[in-house]
Amino acid sequence: MCELLGMECNVPTDIVFSFTALATRGGRTGPHTDGFGLAFYEGKAARVFLDPNAAAHSPIAEFLRKHSIKTELAIAHIRRRTRGQVTLANTHPFLRELWGRAWVFAHNGTVRGIKQRTLGRFVPIGDTDSEHAFCLMLEALRTSFRDYPTKRSDLREAIAEVASELSVHGTFNFLLGDGRALYARTDTKLAHIVRKAPFGKATLADEEVSVDFAEVTTPRDRVAVVATRPLTVDETWTLGEPGSMWVFEEGRCVSTLASPVRGPRRKPHP
Amino acid sequence: MCELLGMECNVPTDIVFSFTALATRGGRTGPHTDGFGLAFYEGKAARVFLDPNAAAHSPIAEFLRKHSIKTELAIAHIRRRTRGQVTLANTHPFLRELWGRAWVFAHNGTVRGIKQRTLGRFVPIGDTDSEHAFCLMLEALRTSFRDYPTKRSDLREAIAEVASELSVHGTFNFLLGDGRALYARTDTKLAHIVRKAPFGKATLADEEVSVDFAEVTTPRDRVAVVATRPLTVDETWTLGEPGSMWVFEEGRCVSTLASPVRGPRRKPHP
Repeated sequence: MCELLGMECNVPTDIVFSFTALATRGGRTGPHTDGFGLAFYEGKAARVFLDPNAAAHSPIAEFLRKHSIKTELAIAHIRRRTRGQVTLANTHPFLRELWGRAWVFAHNGTVRGIKQRTLGRFVPIGDTDSEHAFCLMLEALRTSFRDYPTKRSDLREAIAEVASELSVHGTFNFLLGDGRALYARTDTKLAHIVRKAPFGKATLADEEVSVDFAEVTTPRDRVAVVATRPLTVDETWTLGEPGSMWVFEEGRCVSTLASPVRGPRRKPHP
Repeated sequence: MCELLGMECNVPTDIVFSFTALATRGGRTGPHTDGFGLAFYEGKAARVFLDPNAAAHSPIAEFLRKHSIKTELAIAHIRRRTRGQVTLANTHPFLRELWGRAWVFAHNGTVRGIKQRTLGRFVPIGDTDSEHAFCLMLEALRTSFRDYPTKRSDLREAIAEVASELSVHGTFNFLLGDGRALYARTDTKLAHIVRKAPFGKATLADEEVSVDFAEVTTPRDRVAVVATRPLTVDETWTLGEPGSMWVFEEGRCVSTLASPVRGPRRKPHP
C-alpha cells in the first residue's frame, strides 16, 4: 500500500512541513520504501520530482525538504509496491496532458484486473494497475468533453462517475489534479484538514516537528491538506466517507460528491 | 536563443560533466538566464527537472551537478526567451506520452507563425512556438503509425520529414528522445562527439574543469554527446550539416538523414 498527500491553497504555499511527515513514513517510521514522487503545479503546468528510491533516504527528497517550492497545488505519493516493479515508470504521481493542461494522478490501493480493459489514446508507460486506471479516467473525460468544461460541476461529476465505475476492480483512493482543483476520492481511507485564520500550532505525528502556522501565514490564507492518514496530532482532521470524493479549490472543500462502488467488487485473483 | 545538450550511451552514464558546462552558460558565461530543464530517461519513462530560474543560480541545477544520476539518454536545455513568458509551462524540455513511452523535446530557434497551425490530440500547456511544434510533430507520427514502428528507419524518416516541413517557419534545431534513440536535427547549429575507447582527457570550454574519461569508463562504453556549440576545447566535434538529422542509438550515430527546409522560409513578422 501507499500513502497519498495533497495540498490545495488560495496562495502559493510551502509543502515542506507536510512532506517531511510523509517522507519520514517512506522508509523510517513506515514501510513505504519503494519510491516517492512530488508534483508541483504552476498554473496549468506541473513539474514532478520522482525517485524510485525510499523517500527517507533519497537525496531528491532531502533537497525538497530543504528548498521551499511554493505552489497552490501539490500531489505527493510514497510507494510500497503491491503490483509492478520498482522502476521510474512505475513511480507515482503520473502525468498526462489533456486539453492543454497537465493532469497529475496518485493512487492508493489495488485495482485488480483493470489491465484487461481496453485503452484509448492514453497508454501506460509503466506496468502498474494505477497508471492503467489513470489512462482510462482521462480517456473517459476526453470522450465526454471536447474541451475543459466551462461548468466545473460537470467535470467533477464526470470524475466521480468514472471513479465509481473503475472502483469495482478494487481499492481506489486517489488524488487527481488539473491545475485548478484537487479531486480526492475516498474508497477506504483519506483525511483532510483546511487550515485558515485563526492559525494555530500543529505537531507532526511521525517526527518531533511542530509549526506555528500563525507565523508563516496571512489572515486570508487557506490551505487544504489531504492525506491517507492524519499527519498531525493536535488538529482535527475530517475523515472521508467511503465512496465519496472531495473537490478542493482555492483552499476550500467546494464540493463533496457521491462516488460509490458501481456494482459488486470483483473478487481478488486466487 | 537557447542552448541544447543531449547524451545517448550504451551504458548508464553520468551527464554531470557536460551539464556543468551548459549550466555555466545559463547566466554566468552565457546570456541564457530564463530557465533550464534536464530530462533523464530510464527505459520508456523519463523524469524532467525544470526550473524557470537561471541554471547558474538554480538550487536544482546545483543539486543535479552534485548528485550523479546515470542514464542512457538525457536531454537538457537552457533558455533565453525569444517568445513566451518565463514560466514553468514554457520551460524546455517538453514531455508527452505516445505509444506508451515518454517523448522529450527541446528546441533551439524560433518558428514563426507556427501557432496558426491546427493542432490534433496534443495541445501545448504553455505558449511557446517550440511546444506547438512538438505537438504537431507527435501528431504527425501518431497519424502515420498505429504503434511504435517495428522498422526503426520508418520512424526516423517520418521524423526527418515532419521536421523539414515545420522548418519553413524558421530556425528548427532540436533534440528529440523516445527512450530508444536520440534524434538531433541541425537547422543552423549543432555539434556532436562520440566518446569511446581509447578514452582521453577533456577540458570544458566554459569552466576550468577537466575529466580523464579513461578513469570513469570501461573499454566498451560509448557516449554520444550533442550540443549547440562544442563543450570542450581539446576534443574534435563534428558539426551538423544544415538541414540534416543525426540519430543516435547505443552511443553510435546510426544514421544521418536529410531533413532540408521544405520550400521557402517564411518571412519574419514585421
